[in-house]
Amino acid sequence: MQVTIDDIWKASAALDGQAALTPLLESPRLNERLGGRLLVKAECLQKTGSFKFRGAYNTLTGMDPDIRARGILAYSSGNHAQGVALAAKMYGVPATIIMPSDAPALKKRNTAEYGADVVLYDRFGESREAIGERLVAEQGLTLVKPYDQVSVIAGQGTVGLEIEEQTAELAAEPDVVVCPAGGGGLISGVSIALKAAFDDIDIHPAEPEGFDDWRRSLEAGERRTADPEARSICDAILTPTPGEITFEIGRHHLSRGLVVSDREALEAMRTAFLELKLVAEPGGVTALAAILAGRIDIAGRTAVAIVSGGNVDPEVFRQALDL
Amino acid sequence: MQVTIDDIWKASAALDGQAALTPLLESPRLNERLGGRLLVKAECLQKTGSFKFRGAYNTLTGMDPDIRARGILAYSSGNHAQGVALAAKMYGVPATIIMPSDAPALKKRNTAEYGADVVLYDRFGESREAIGERLVAEQGLTLVKPYDQVSVIAGQGTVGLEIEEQTAELAAEPDVVVCPAGGGGLISGVSIALKAAFDDIDIHPAEPEGFDDWRRSLEAGERRTADPEARSICDAILTPTPGEITFEIGRHHLSRGLVVSDREALEAMRTAFLELKLVAEPGGVTALAAILAGRIDIAGRTAVAIVSGGNVDPEVFRQALDL
Repeated sequence: MQVTIDDIWKASAALDGQAALTPLLESPRLNERLGGRLLVKAECLQKTGSFKFRGAYNTLTGMDPDIRARGILAYSSGNHAQGVALAAKMYGVPATIIMPSDAPALKKRNTAEYGADVVLYDRFGESREAIGERLVAEQGLTLVKPYDQVSVIAGQGTVGLEIEEQTAELAAEPDVVVCPAGGGGLISGVSIALKAAFDDIDIHPAEPEGFDDWRRSLEAGERRTADPEARSICDAILTPTPGEITFEIGRHHLSRGLVVSDREALEAMRTAFLELKLVAEPGGVTALAAILAGRIDIAGRTAVAIVSGGNVDPEVFRQALDL
Repeated sequence: MQVTIDDIWKASAALDGQAALTPLLESPRLNERLGGRLLVKAECLQKTGSFKFRGAYNTLTGMDPDIRARGILAYSSGNHAQGVALAAKMYGVPATIIMPSDAPALKKRNTAEYGADVVLYDRFGESREAIGERLVAEQGLTLVKPYDQVSVIAGQGTVGLEIEEQTAELAAEPDVVVCPAGGGGLISGVSIALKAAFDDIDIHPAEPEGFDDWRRSLEAGERRTADPEARSICDAILTPTPGEITFEIGRHHLSRGLVVSDREALEAMRTAFLELKLVAEPGGVTALAAILAGRIDIAGRTAVAIVSGGNVDPEVFRQALDL
């Protein structure tokens, strides 16, 4: 595989003191309700409100300084955008971010506030890749891919190293990990770290209905696409298909995909509000939603749910509170 | 003083592996807005949604097992109630909690769900102390006070030890700490820990308008009471006067009191939602509110704001989102 545990250890060194060490939380009441032990890796508390900062910062760390200084390019529905924008700001280099025009207002505003140039495109018409390639050719920018890049996957994989350390501190050994999956940068990196630490661990992707390309691909043993007509509120993970590198890792390391409805995602956001005091976004909460909705039974087991982001507009959060 | 740094170290050992190690978070955007470095101790992520679990668990740890087995009594607007209820459950002993009938529904329900007997009283009519003394006499229960008790203050003081360790990991030295203050268990414990670590640190209580008994008492050099006609949404910290033990500590260690309006508390809850992805309750967010509202200037300084709790009903949280 193209990404090794050594890559993730190096990323961990690069991120030390730069990324937040996010907590592994648990709620006695949720444990009682589920009949097992649920540990929540609260990556919504990461800088920029999602895990994406890790991969972005790790990628910029590994770049040639002269090339880095020419500027960074990224395309993203919002979380990768903010991660790249902050990493570029911390390195003092310019960033251009290509975002879908229907991305949450909060994510567009935040990205601009980190000092990046934001270029909008139509998610269901134009190709962000084509726009990106033009900017790379014209301006000499370097693209930081949202997931299908070794340095990005290695950065996200540091979440797995932290889960290993933090479960050890709690004298817990995880039987199962559930992780939101879009392109798969987070889950593939995490799977390398955790499969190296725990032989028998099961790692499941969690996706929104209609965007279950990981579930389909894992069943088929090759990359499949999701329903092109589907829509979901889980904006952060609406990718049509797993990445090439991420799927090559995933098909070795991942167990069956879990799927949740938008309603179940909102219910999990409400539970995160009430029981964990976390602000989670719909796409970031699919793993917690899959466990709460019983897509996987954790009775008598120790499970880790990764909450991958919290960048949600107040209007959407209100829908969760109103349930 | 009745509470020593040794008491807090012992409490830290008792809580190791039982209490959550809550993160010290920061937002690059908030830092930029404030012109300083703001570190947020997210104690809303503690078990039961507030710091109160620390003092309760530490107190039960120090009790004679036979006396503990007879049962625990507490009176509380809600956060201490939940902390005591969970600590009692973890020790397998019964708990009776006396709560004001106008406490948030969430806090009443959660306390009952931890298995405690909940007894309601009228906050503006009856005396919770009188009810409590009767139950102690009749049933042989042991009272765990909400703040004015050495073991409780020592438990809450572990928040200060963690701030010391976590700022060191960030290579930061705090110039100023702002902490919500009701009876003062948290701020007095924290002040002992942090004054032992940092000679020149300023520690300020933050209170809601009309309940500025700490501000008045520190100015007068002796315990004063707040306005008896005042009302506020900051339910967790609506105490009429500082505790005796907590004020004896506070008058040596604390700097001037800061006061915020209910509106400023709601605005800080909104900022915690947007920038930190934390669910904070009105009484738990007064320190952050005081900094955001400019009650103290942190430009060029490193400040720690303690967010002490997140047990807020959805209806109140909606008010913050709607601002």
